[in-house]
Amino acid sequence: MAHIKLNNEELPGIIGLLDYSPETARPLSELAEVLLADDNNSLSRGEREIIAASVSYKNECHFCHSSHAAAAAAHLQQDVKFLDEIKKEFPQYRISDKLRALIAIAHHVQQGGKKVTGEDIDNAKKKGASDKEIHDTVLIAAAFCMYNRYVDGLGTWAPRENDAFMPMGRKLAEEGYLAAVTVN
Amino acid sequence: MAHIKLNNEELPGIIGLLDYSPETARPLSELAEVLLADDNNSLSRGEREIIAASVSYKNECHFCHSSHAAAAAAHLQQDVKFLDEIKKEFPQYRISDKLRALIAIAHHVQQGGKKVTGEDIDNAKKKGASDKEIHDTVLIAAAFCMYNRYVDGLGTWAPRENDAFMPMGRKLAEEGYLAAVTVN
Repeated sequence: MAHIKLNNEELPGIIGLLDYSPETARPLSELAEVLLADDNNSLSRGEREIIAASVSYKNECHFCHSSHAAAAAAHLQQDVKFLDEIKKEFPQYRISDKLRALIAIAHHVQQGGKKVTGEDIDNAKKKGASDKEIHDTVLIAAAFCMYNRYVDGLGTWAPRENDAFMPMGRKLAEEGYLAAVTVN
Repeated sequence: MAHIKLNNEELPGIIGLLDYSPETARPLSELAEVLLADDNNSLSRGEREIIAASVSYKNECHFCHSSHAAAAAAHLQQDVKFLDEIKKEFPQYRISDKLRALIAIAHHVQQGGKKVTGEDIDNAKKKGASDKEIHDTVLIAAAFCMYNRYVDGLGTWAPRENDAFMPMGRKLAEEGYLAAVTVN
């Protein structure tokens, strides 16, 4: 049960929080939309969802990891095993050297802003990352340090099984992040 | 020097980042506006800036701590010494027991969402905090875990001296967080 009375106990994770607080839901959803769903970006939507999911896993946020990993799976035509691929940092699925270097930056951001090193940045640039891609990676990682803390800091619930997140991931991949707030 | 080329090297901290990326600047600024500057809130603007500044100090983000501590000082008619009061958790300035309990929640959010305990929440409620105030405290703390990582993860610069932040704090207190983005 959440730490505060949300009056929407059937809604898991951030979905209940967005419903509880529409005035903060709007900028939170708009930020997710521009970072993850905007097509005007040289990182694919699947790559950006992988960064979001991987940071959420490091933050031990089961709801955010599973829902964004499921969104990545939907974008990349992968099945439910993809959620564990992200947790284990891709033993089977092949990702580009550039994405791997960006994930390394994201993992340092997760530990703290000052943990990002000049070497992290140089390595990403050497693997072909642009300044804009580095910017977006840092901000996606930073934003998920917020979303993860919002979801767990208020003690929301989440389905346990990976399979339960697959429909949610498909919905996020198809409809983006504004669908939930623009109906209001 | 920042890790990426911002083309606005004279702008410190998040100001340069908001200028570099207007499409993310808008939701980031709207979120700060509703959390910190909206008058429709039972926590005063000074109290909310204290929470933001205190979390930023824990995250070792000099730019965010100093600018939001200076905004708190402006709201509460305090001088530059107030920046150190926040760092030292109020040896001189008297804060309410409720605010102290909310700051304890915020500091646990800073460590990770799962660090918030039922006791933290019960204590804040006993000291008079409402569900909405607990919600806003958790989200302010979470949001500054994002802003702090954005600012430091991209290696932006900041003025060193506390005094340099006082005009910035007054401007934030007077104009809020949309002034920078709504001129575009």
